[in-house]
Order: sequence, then C-alpha cells, then structure tokens
Amino acid sequence: MTRQQLIDTIRSKQTFLCVGLDTDPTKVPKHLLEAYPNDIGAAILAFNAAIIDATSTYAVAYKINTAFYEAMGTSGWTLLHETINQIPGDCLSILDAKRGDIGNTSDQYAKAFFIALGADAVTVAPYMGADSVQPFLDHNGKWTIALALTSNPGSQDFQQLLLENGQRMFEVVIERLCSWGNPDQLMLVAGATRGADLATVRALAPDYFLLVPGVGAQGGSLDDVCEAAMTKDCCLLINSSRQIIYASAGPDFASAAKTEAQRLQQEMAQWLTKKS
Amino acid sequence: MTRQQLIDTIRSKQTFLCVGLDTDPTKVPKHLLEAYPNDIGAAILAFNAAIIDATSTYAVAYKINTAFYEAMGTSGWTLLHETINQIPGDCLSILDAKRGDIGNTSDQYAKAFFIALGADAVTVAPYMGADSVQPFLDHNGKWTIALALTSNPGSQDFQQLLLENGQRMFEVVIERLCSWGNPDQLMLVAGATRGADLATVRALAPDYFLLVPGVGAQGGSLDDVCEAAMTKDCCLLINSSRQIIYASAGPDFASAAKTEAQRLQQEMAQWLTKKS
Repeated sequence: MTRQQLIDTIRSKQTFLCVGLDTDPTKVPKHLLEAYPNDIGAAILAFNAAIIDATSTYAVAYKINTAFYEAMGTSGWTLLHETINQIPGDCLSILDAKRGDIGNTSDQYAKAFFIALGADAVTVAPYMGADSVQPFLDHNGKWTIALALTSNPGSQDFQQLLLENGQRMFEVVIERLCSWGNPDQLMLVAGATRGADLATVRALAPDYFLLVPGVGAQGGSLDDVCEAAMTKDCCLLINSSRQIIYASAGPDFASAAKTEAQRLQQEMAQWLTKKS
Repeated sequence: MTRQQLIDTIRSKQTFLCVGLDTDPTKVPKHLLEAYPNDIGAAILAFNAAIIDATSTYAVAYKINTAFYEAMGTSGWTLLHETINQIPGDCLSILDAKRGDIGNTSDQYAKAFFIALGADAVTVAPYMGADSVQPFLDHNGKWTIALALTSNPGSQDFQQLLLENGQRMFEVVIERLCSWGNPDQLMLVAGATRGADLATVRALAPDYFLLVPGVGAQGGSLDDVCEAAMTKDCCLLINSSRQIIYASAGPDFASAAKTEAQRLQQEMAQWLTKKS
C-alpha cells in the first residue's frame, strides 16, 4: 500500500486505527482453548481471525508483535504466517519485530519479514545506524517503521540524552532517519505517552506517518496525540492492543473488541473532520 | 555456564573463540545440497553439525545469527532449535538476536530464546532502555549480551554522538547497562573494528565479558583487541564467522574450518600466557 493509498483508505474508512495483535496464549478466552484441546496454535489463530474479522471495518492496519509468536517456538512462526494471511487487503500488515543488525544480517531479516512472511511493514531499531536500516528500505513497495521515541519508561534512559549541540538523542535519530528514507517508504514510531515531545517529532518529520503505540493500557491519550501530531493528510496510525483484543475474556470477546474498535474509530472520525 | 566456569573453560581449552554460525543457504557447499535434494534445512543442519564437530575443541562459544534462520520461515525456527542442540555442553550457545522491546514484550522474547529454544545467552539492543533489558536479566543462570559499541560502519551514526557532559553515547550506554546487570549475568558487545575505543569500553566495564565481533571478514585484528581489552581473567569472547565457516566451499569445508579455528586458538593461547 502506497502512502497515497493509505491516506485515501484513512479518509474513506474514517479511521487511522492500528489494532495490535499481541496475542498472549495465557489470555486466550477459555472457551476457545476448550474448542481446540491440545492445540494452542489453533486456538490463537481462531482468536486472531475473530478479532480481525470483528475490527477490520474500523481499522487500517494490524500490528503483530512477533515476540508473542516466537515465544511459542516453531509453531509460533507458522502462526505468524497464518495470521498475516488473515489480514484483509485494505489494511497494512505490520510486523512489530524491532530488528536492526549489520548490513548482511538486516538484509536477512528484511527477506524474512517482507518475503518469507509477506508483511507490508516491519519495525526496526536504529541503534546500529545507517547500514542496519538500509536493507529494509531497499525493498520497494514495503514500509520500514523505525523506532524514534518509544512509549515505555526506559525511553528516558537513552533517547532523551542531551547532546553537546543542544539536541536530544531522539531528535538526531529522527533527522538522520529522514535523510535515509523518504515519506513513501519510512514511518517513525513515536509513543503516545511522550506528551509535548510528540510535537517535536512532528516538526522534525512533517510528512512522515507516525506509528503511535501507548494509547490505552500504557496511559496515552488519543486526543493529545491528534492535537500534537495530526496533519491535514492525517499521517498517524494509532495503535491499540490490549484495550481492544482483551476487551472481554468471555465468549463475547470479538463483539467486545468490535465495540472498542468502533468507539476509537468514531473518535478518530471527529479528528479527521476537525483537521482536514 | 557461570562466569567462573567460563573463565575455567577458557583456561583449560586455551581459547576464547566464539564461532559464528551465520549460515547462509546460498553458501552451503554444493555436495551437501546434492546429498539432501529438496531439503535445504537438512543440508544446513548437516553443515552446522560438521562445523561444530570440527571446531568445538578450539572454541568456548557458538553465536547463532537468528536472522539467517528466520529468513527461511517456519523451517528456520526448527533448524535454530536443532542447531542449538548440536552445541556441546562445554560451549556457550549464544543467540545473536539483538532484541529489545517494552517490558511485557521483552519478557516474551526472553522466554522464546532461553526457554523455548534453550539458549545460554542472547544479544539485546539497548535503545529502549532499562525496562527493555531487565526481562532478559531476570532469567537466572542465563546471559544477557547487550550492544554497546558495534563493529559496523553505522556505529558512528548514533553510538559516537557527543553528549553535553562530554561523554559519548556508547559510554553512557555502558555505564547504565552495568548499573542494571552484574558481570555474572551481563556481557557487552564491542566491535573489533573500534580501535582505541575498545580500551574505553574495558575501562568502563573492567570485570565484564566482552563479545567481540568484527575480527576477520570485517577487518578487526585479534592482537589489537587483546592488547586493548583482555584482562587477567581474559573476559573476552572473540567471534569469527565467515572466516571459519566459509574457509572452503568444497567437500573439505569442515577440515578447512578446523584449521582456521585451530590457528585462531593458537594465537589466543599465546595471549592467555602473556596476560595471565
């Protein structure tokens, strides 16, 4: 999906919601575990498929947290593949893998995610610099989503360090990332919990899509994010994971997820009207 | 393997060599591909098993680059597991995965690598801070190996940034990492290509093992590393990947790998005598 197609989809569906499929095997509803005895993989796939089916009207992207699947070993990798295949064509499939390594290794990761698994986008960690990010950018028609300012408490430890030129670490990271990739191939991760710094991120990267985690369970606010970082083309993908997929632990988990996704979509539609 | 057991093993085997199993499917010797028609996984496993068998006398660790296995999809994950099982008990199994994510996600990765795959050690990326590293440190009896100063050209982009207090980024990263983990549970990655900075790394982390990539194909020198960073307890694991595993592309690949590993071991034995 190109940048323009993504903007058009956001306008037509009136949403910029990304649903996070951080599916924890210990949180799959009991009735699904009972429906697939001794096959946790099948239970998780049924869970993911039901969540995707219930929420895709209200979403433009799904972010799959690879860690939760890799923790399952070999069967998790199969499940990752099958989950990607469930995502409809009008939604981006994002693998939240946060990879980054020396050139020949990043090249292997890019192939793993973009080709073997067929994802549209993958998150990358920038600490190792240009040659660790470039192999992802080299895949035409795919998206590289680089960590800039993350939503977790530890983002204070290094990302906020003050440099001798007066900038903070994350600001230099954003400037360099934007010199390596253009807005048609690169997005940035910027946490919803970062308050005023989100406006700084937007000022440094005016035309780039931001993938924003941290709304909901982590405490970030949709309104604050839109106020600080929404553009006339939107240029935001706001992720919600636990708040949607664990809205209910009962047999009504999918309809509860739908209600929550629809609620967020309606708030987003108001912001789209306000900022367009 | 505890820190003391590792030091004892280094002394008794007279080596601190880590062999990097960055096994690229396109570089597996032709005769192995022919021996396992239509089963690249079996050919790679045969390759890895032969390399491990030929080199384990001269090594104390194997570093498996997960990217090369993940690029193969589901079968790669199985292969990762089977390769770890080939590593003898007197050698550390290191998964070079460079992970790091918010706390609940890093916790999933730690389980994937330490429990599902049974590795002794895993490499982590520090950009997201304390809560991204802690879940790895929480596994007793396992090793967390954090990126400090990497061997690739891109290490200049962010790791060398000068901070307002006069330190460079990688120095603060090392100081904070060492405040989170002690030398019995944490090692640091420091590239062989970093010259004088290796001595700085050692000064900041006098008792920590350093995992040193970049000797050989990337241009680093064993002598320079030992001069700058070896301690009386050694505290170095020097990695060589391509120089050993691709020493020959013919039917003699294992014996060529053995010759190369033995050559490095003999150089290392001299340094152990010199510095003890």
